[in-house]
Amino acid sequence: MTVKCRLCGRPAFIKLHYPRTYLCREHFIEYFERKVRRTIERYKLLKPDERVLAVVSGGKDSAVTAYVLKKLGYDIECLHINLGIGEYSEKSEEYARKQCEAFEVPLHVVRVKELLGKGIGEVRTRRPVCSYCGLTKRYIFNKFAYDNGFDAVATGHNLDDEASFIFASLMNWNTDYLAKQGPVTPSQFNGKLVKKVKPLYELTEREIVAYALAEGIKYLMDECPHAVGATTLKYKNILNAMEEERPGTKVNFVKGYLRNRDLFRARLDERELRECKVCGMPSNGEVCSFCRFWGLEKPLEFRVREG
Amino acid sequence: MTVKCRLCGRPAFIKLHYPRTYLCREHFIEYFERKVRRTIERYKLLKPDERVLAVVSGGKDSAVTAYVLKKLGYDIECLHINLGIGEYSEKSEEYARKQCEAFEVPLHVVRVKELLGKGIGEVRTRRPVCSYCGLTKRYIFNKFAYDNGFDAVATGHNLDDEASFIFASLMNWNTDYLAKQGPVTPSQFNGKLVKKVKPLYELTEREIVAYALAEGIKYLMDECPHAVGATTLKYKNILNAMEEERPGTKVNFVKGYLRNRDLFRARLDERELRECKVCGMPSNGEVCSFCRFWGLEKPLEFRVREG
Repeated sequence: MTVKCRLCGRPAFIKLHYPRTYLCREHFIEYFERKVRRTIERYKLLKPDERVLAVVSGGKDSAVTAYVLKKLGYDIECLHINLGIGEYSEKSEEYARKQCEAFEVPLHVVRVKELLGKGIGEVRTRRPVCSYCGLTKRYIFNKFAYDNGFDAVATGHNLDDEASFIFASLMNWNTDYLAKQGPVTPSQFNGKLVKKVKPLYELTEREIVAYALAEGIKYLMDECPHAVGATTLKYKNILNAMEEERPGTKVNFVKGYLRNRDLFRARLDERELRECKVCGMPSNGEVCSFCRFWGLEKPLEFRVREG
Repeated sequence: MTVKCRLCGRPAFIKLHYPRTYLCREHFIEYFERKVRRTIERYKLLKPDERVLAVVSGGKDSAVTAYVLKKLGYDIECLHINLGIGEYSEKSEEYARKQCEAFEVPLHVVRVKELLGKGIGEVRTRRPVCSYCGLTKRYIFNKFAYDNGFDAVATGHNLDDEASFIFASLMNWNTDYLAKQGPVTPSQFNGKLVKKVKPLYELTEREIVAYALAEGIKYLMDECPHAVGATTLKYKNILNAMEEERPGTKVNFVKGYLRNRDLFRARLDERELRECKVCGMPSNGEVCSFCRFWGLEKPLEFRVREG
């Protein structure tokens, strides 16, 4: 027996668990895009005329983010950061290029190794790789967006990412992290911290994979070699098991967090940000952690167009 | 090869996971009791001269609580509440009697069926059994302690109970619950809410079972027939899996909670308590939830000794 779409009776393309229903390819695409639109509206992520920089890694989440934003009519360009992690990074860049070509979206590429002399994983430091990789990516996409006048940076964070991050932060009582998560981080410090938005905030990994399949979006499936055995996977597995037992667990957990986020802000250590004396960007200390980590003596400039 | 006690070289009785070590029977008993003493001191549970009512269910946790408090020299008496849940309750009472006889501690018994006409599970109500059972037990042990001038009620809650309760409360964002948990709840409302203490707050279920074995304490192993499949078990299983992967997870999670509990108090809905017009005990409404649930028209009195 063929299972049918609940809306039109055509053969089902996917079984959704929450809400529990079957949808054909067309109605699933509609459902998915409606959910992204609703996320953008409900959390006030973007205004229609804002210029958006979508960060594309080559993987599924960021590819779908860029694709949907373009399809919904937003004014977007993409940025790929080549992390310099051997063949993995070369394949990632190749996928990012093919995606942007297919989506007809301008792509900018920044190569960490050319920019900073060393790739991620090649720096001799006691700091964990994933930690300084995150620092580096966040700095570059923010500075790139700032230098080129974008109103927002869009990333591919999905419901699973967010739920597991909040879960991990609770288990370890990282209340500073818990004060600052969410689908949108507003622009701060005279626009030097560009607004960050997460259009896939309420969509699961499973839905994103299905959407990419439905729309024929190609993406790199390889995991970063440094991410093997990452503890975030442990938390994702636990949440997946809970979700399976009680569908809706993740989204209700994340929505509950958003309703209660203010509790964690009460304690937030709001140190006054000042200008990094190397690059002029917001910093906790005299030199920002990016310039300090990479030992920079003059600011990186990413301007690619006339201001 | 026989594994040896790390302290004296005698054959090991138990392998502790956190801290990771082996102890003989005598040194394990010493370790366990030192931990209870430290809990009592660190969290200021009891002063040496306070009169303590230990609630004994017949199970391991409350039996060990009563036994250790007596052994540490506290002035304790016990209360068993026979819940009227068929044979399970008769066996529970039998165990409680044998325990108190063995510990040489006075025992008081309150029988729900004689007191209120029906046993737990026999009431026709839409309220879940575990919910009104908890309400009933909490009311009775508090009122019994108040009527008889006890300074504190000691319960057998252990680290696993506390960790899973906090975990469940976080997953469901029950911030009111999160505002009020902890090893001690101070006396309130002119002493009508008697102080509650949890001497086994930092001891795991596994350690308690081992201690009961080491000291020859007999207890009922049966689960309450109404508790089968309780969702708290689900959370306990998750925490056990995390504990196995990283020993110390539970205790660090609970200690982290205690450091951050104030965050949840900020939002606490502190409704003014007033006197229940039936029993005079603290109440949110005109009649307290206990008197309302059981349809009481005059207060229960538990006085067994001259005030």
